[in-house]
Amino acid sequence: MKMLKVSIMGGSGYTGSELLRLLINHPHISIDQITSRQDEGKCVADVFPFLEGKIDQIFTHPEKVTFDHSDLVFFATPNGVAMRYAKNLLDQGKKIIDLAADFRIKDISLWEHWYQMKHECPELAQKAVYGLTEINRDQIKEAQLIANPGCYPTAIQLALVPLLKKDVINESSIIIDAKSGISGAGKRQDTNLLMSEAYDNFNAYSVGGHRHEPEIEENLKLTTGNNKIDTVFVPHLLPMVRGIYATIYADLKMDTNVELINKMYTDFYQSSYFVNFLGHDQVPQTKSVRGSNQCKISFFKRKNRLIILSTIDNLVKGAAGQAIQNMNVMFGIEENIGLDIIPVSP
Amino acid sequence: MKMLKVSIMGGSGYTGSELLRLLINHPHISIDQITSRQDEGKCVADVFPFLEGKIDQIFTHPEKVTFDHSDLVFFATPNGVAMRYAKNLLDQGKKIIDLAADFRIKDISLWEHWYQMKHECPELAQKAVYGLTEINRDQIKEAQLIANPGCYPTAIQLALVPLLKKDVINESSIIIDAKSGISGAGKRQDTNLLMSEAYDNFNAYSVGGHRHEPEIEENLKLTTGNNKIDTVFVPHLLPMVRGIYATIYADLKMDTNVELINKMYTDFYQSSYFVNFLGHDQVPQTKSVRGSNQCKISFFKRKNRLIILSTIDNLVKGAAGQAIQNMNVMFGIEENIGLDIIPVSP
Amino acid sequence: MKMLKVSIMGGSGYTGSELLRLLINHPHISIDQITSRQDEGKCVADVFPFLEGKIDQIFTHPEKVTFDHSDLVFFATPNGVAMRYAKNLLDQGKKIIDLAADFRIKDISLWEHWYQMKHECPELAQKAVYGLTEINRDQIKEAQLIANPGCYPTAIQLALVPLLKKDVINESSIIIDAKSGISGAGKRQDTNLLMSEAYDNFNAYSVGGHRHEPEIEENLKLTTGNNKIDTVFVPHLLPMVRGIYATIYADLKMDTNVELINKMYTDFYQSSYFVNFLGHDQVPQTKSVRGSNQCKISFFKRKNRLIILSTIDNLVKGAAGQAIQNMNVMFGIEENIGLDIIPVSP
Amino acid sequence: MKMLKVSIMGGSGYTGSELLRLLINHPHISIDQITSRQDEGKCVADVFPFLEGKIDQIFTHPEKVTFDHSDLVFFATPNGVAMRYAKNLLDQGKKIIDLAADFRIKDISLWEHWYQMKHECPELAQKAVYGLTEINRDQIKEAQLIANPGCYPTAIQLALVPLLKKDVINESSIIIDAKSGISGAGKRQDTNLLMSEAYDNFNAYSVGGHRHEPEIEENLKLTTGNNKIDTVFVPHLLPMVRGIYATIYADLKMDTNVELINKMYTDFYQSSYFVNFLGHDQVPQTKSVRGSNQCKISFFKRKNRLIILSTIDNLVKGAAGQAIQNMNVMFGIEENIGLDIIPVSP
Repeated sequence: MKMLKVSIMGGSGYTGSELLRLLINHPHISIDQITSRQDEGKCVADVFPFLEGKIDQIFTHPEKVTFDHSDLVFFATPNGVAMRYAKNLLDQGKKIIDLAADFRIKDISLWEHWYQMKHECPELAQKAVYGLTEINRDQIKEAQLIANPGCYPTAIQLALVPLLKKDVINESSIIIDAKSGISGAGKRQDTNLLMSEAYDNFNAYSVGGHRHEPEIEENLKLTTGNNKIDTVFVPHLLPMVRGIYATIYADLKMDTNVELINKMYTDFYQSSYFVNFLGHDQVPQTKSVRGSNQCKISFFKRKNRLIILSTIDNLVKGAAGQAIQNMNVMFGIEENIGLDIIPVSP
Repeated sequence: MKMLKVSIMGGSGYTGSELLRLLINHPHISIDQITSRQDEGKCVADVFPFLEGKIDQIFTHPEKVTFDHSDLVFFATPNGVAMRYAKNLLDQGKKIIDLAADFRIKDISLWEHWYQMKHECPELAQKAVYGLTEINRDQIKEAQLIANPGCYPTAIQLALVPLLKKDVINESSIIIDAKSGISGAGKRQDTNLLMSEAYDNFNAYSVGGHRHEPEIEENLKLTTGNNKIDTVFVPHLLPMVRGIYATIYADLKMDTNVELINKMYTDFYQSSYFVNFLGHDQVPQTKSVRGSNQCKISFFKRKNRLIILSTIDNLVKGAAGQAIQNMNVMFGIEENIGLDIIPVSP
Repeated sequence: MKMLKVSIMGGSGYTGSELLRLLINHPHISIDQITSRQDEGKCVADVFPFLEGKIDQIFTHPEKVTFDHSDLVFFATPNGVAMRYAKNLLDQGKKIIDLAADFRIKDISLWEHWYQMKHECPELAQKAVYGLTEINRDQIKEAQLIANPGCYPTAIQLALVPLLKKDVINESSIIIDAKSGISGAGKRQDTNLLMSEAYDNFNAYSVGGHRHEPEIEENLKLTTGNNKIDTVFVPHLLPMVRGIYATIYADLKMDTNVELINKMYTDFYQSSYFVNFLGHDQVPQTKSVRGSNQCKISFFKRKNRLIILSTIDNLVKGAAGQAIQNMNVMFGIEENIGLDIIPVSP
Repeated sequence: MKMLKVSIMGGSGYTGSELLRLLINHPHISIDQITSRQDEGKCVADVFPFLEGKIDQIFTHPEKVTFDHSDLVFFATPNGVAMRYAKNLLDQGKKIIDLAADFRIKDISLWEHWYQMKHECPELAQKAVYGLTEINRDQIKEAQLIANPGCYPTAIQLALVPLLKKDVINESSIIIDAKSGISGAGKRQDTNLLMSEAYDNFNAYSVGGHRHEPEIEENLKLTTGNNKIDTVFVPHLLPMVRGIYATIYADLKMDTNVELINKMYTDFYQSSYFVNFLGHDQVPQTKSVRGSNQCKISFFKRKNRLIILSTIDNLVKGAAGQAIQNMNVMFGIEENIGLDIIPVSP
């Protein structure tokens, strides 16, 4: 098939470099532009030594580049950037996948509250398709603009949607205790992210409220049509680099046996290559998904309560991998092409 | 004051070496015997190179030793050992602190179910005092036999007791999402505990039920007199060595403002040196207690729900430190003597 | 092309699971048998959860299996196993790649000294080709039996051979300070390999002599014809899982400028896909090769002394990856097929 | 005895907080001022949560404070600060211990070359005593201004001085392969120090030359009177927080048996509480000194070459601990007071 040409806006962070890791070996892709303000003019492989010998490109400045030859532009930029470029690119017929948060929430005042800036193109937020591939595959096929989900929301919604759709769990009983590797915080010069601070340490953060909480709730409501959904979400920082692990507690509406719940998951994900439902009484681990696009889900039943476990690699299924999965769907490429990666373990 | 003579049964594991680390610098203690089957005849400092130059003792065989000169014997042995030695030692007038689980649960059939062995002296389980120092200080003063609490139960009960005593939280709404460093699993040759397996990894374990759950529930009931207490407890394994972190979710019985809850904690712990209540909207971290006997507690209020955070070093406040704190109380020594350690950070 | 059928003897350790990770996605391979004494009858994916959904095979017992349908057998067994099976398999026309040490040293008495057992087929040790692909490619093409090099010897010889062949360094001045991740020690139940011991720790080991030292010296002599080669090799254990890093100190025989040394390396490795020579005054890092088959080499010149840096992933280029690279060469498959992996970073 | 009053200039970094950890429990010390530009007005315990409940002080601005009540001022400031304040304080009769590099090198042009700034009081550099306690104890007793050694220089010189003084090793054969935990780089907002970068990674750095190299060479020459000393020093960054490990290679001038070398070390360090010489064929590990002021040294003899191993905690014996050891010596306090810490292990 014809090679797609894709560009990356903001290629010098961790989602940018992860897009590169995955795109370089994608058989139907050629990489057009990779932009970076801070690294303009540098060889990509000098900034990312693990790409040495794998890529020849040079970082270009986002204001000095055109995407005339690109079919698709990935935005791996900070929040608030894609919304300034999107309209123009869409008008040129380009497709866009934004890995930041600009188009993840339809309720603009809610978005503006959590992201503390004015939204510059609310109308596109309405048109954007939320790129949780397994849930919105049909809309993604037709989409021109994709809001790629956050890392926590991906792990959590994949665990909850099959049960919420069947209306078996009490929508106001959901407690999400989530843990993330530090790469989720990005490549920022921040004292809290220093090795000396984060190694051999563990703590909760944003306990009073985290930006991914409104994203989860709004999208769960849209997906299930259930507006009573109300969750508590507490994120924690793990002393490691990659991995999201969500432990979700939810009460059953009525007694439902484990086999029935097993069936809800297996039916829901029967044609989803990247979701491994492990069954009940199984325990996934982050290492079993590291470096791959897999999501592993299992659950336990304790009296009338479910404990659901879900894990992904935040940089792959939680960011760059799901973005490429969405790209595949948008362009009619088989979903697992370029993403059929086996986790690195041990 | 007169030097106390103390012995350690089973000194070659992590709780044993942690007792040594703390006892060596205790001004009122001299160490009598340290036993070990596997290391009999070896210098303690050869088995634990970090004690090089700090201790001259040799490991003795537990069957070849008498405790005639000891005032107190610590059991840092596997579960099921102390119950075979206790009666005899108590009859000789010795005091005992068992760091294993033999005397932590009064309901013997419950104990036998969870520990999968026959209890050899159920009557002593009834007489033993549960050594959660801040809760049972008065009984500990008079006790001859102490059941030193488990690591999870210490962090969790210290967080819950002040509120359960005031009856402000719904006793059946309690969800405990707990995380532990790997030293809690001991110095066992087990593939799952290998660095290659546990490094850069995270997972839940014993989700279907963990031995610390009945310990927590029984002792919370005994402490508060509230028999409706019913908890869900899910432990997780952190990719680090020391530290317990409990994130506890509980519904308020009626709307209670944060200042009132602050007051419940500060009143309860006003004369407890080792509990640092941080107030509301604060986040403790494991690194701030590492190597020390401190417990740090804080909470958040989200609508009608509390999120309580509690952290300790599992080998200190969760094991050897609390054992020595109990020893101090039993012998009329000021509680913080030998334990006034500042955490090592970063 | 026709699919090759390959089997793995001893598939339950880390080199075994790494062979699987790489072979599953190899386009020209089908996996025949995977043996394990301890895991006989279990699904491979149950023992290695990261392979869930990627492999259907069941572990077979090594004594209950035939390799009639296999073209090649990998031995990922402990030292001393392959030498008991090799003759029989070779007589059946099978090819063998031994990832253990049985055939790495031609001097049998030296081998027996270091490995503390009697060699059971010395004549095959003479016939085996040492599988350092970049050095012995032509012999590997024709070989029926490959001795896959150790992890340290791979990183070290790739750094030294280009210069020793040109006779520019003093062969008795070579000091090798090497560091390894803990997966190099295998999946053994050994107290020293526990997370509680190895995390946040660093130390030298086998300072008095390590088995890889005679392997390095003998093979460097065979490769270069220089029998005066005499090295000091001190290994260290890093608090991480994957990665070998060798810092090599060597005196120049005569003053040689850096450009000339650059040329020696670039000429030597110009058609070697997996060796990235970075040039002088560059510093490789283990993370830039993690999970991949790359070897990164650079050097510094300080007065008359070279400091050469070389890094590989011990489980890939230092074990399973190089084994598959050798397989490719033996069967006329392009060398990088199935191995064109980009490191996982960060 | 009378309580000493000490102040800390620049207390918001890792050497500052480590001074606090150690000084708070020192029985003869009260802490006067702790300065910090960035944290002025904040509670020390808010900036360092591990000190919660242990200290009441507030950070003061260095320009708004006087040290009238201080007997001693520690400088835990960046390089180049102490030299601007020292003269004035010394004139007021204060004693100074500089934990930065301002007074470590007597050759001012050498210092200016390596530190890339003009030295503002070269005459004090001449008067300063180099605070390697075990080597310069007598001069330290009388000193008013101490240049506290760097972390690498401490571990390395303690290992080399006893042998260089006896002139048994070839002074131009010395190769030092050194490894450090990341806290040695300080609490700087630097991308390379991020957890995402440094975790699960290892590399050499400053291979072409590191500032500690001239410090080591000059001080070894001054201590031994041997001006032919010429070393190669290559530092590496370990994926952990605390710990220096030096592997030192040196040729013997003539064949010297191990017992004689043992004796050189034991004689030299017989009254040095903080140096544990382990003897030959022993291997120290960083974990055995973590959090403590110990230095552990051992060696191996291979043919005519010694391999010497030396380890310290870079923040304690390599910085704050040695500073307090020097303070004790300066004020006639027993050397180990306040420093008799047992390492935290595991």
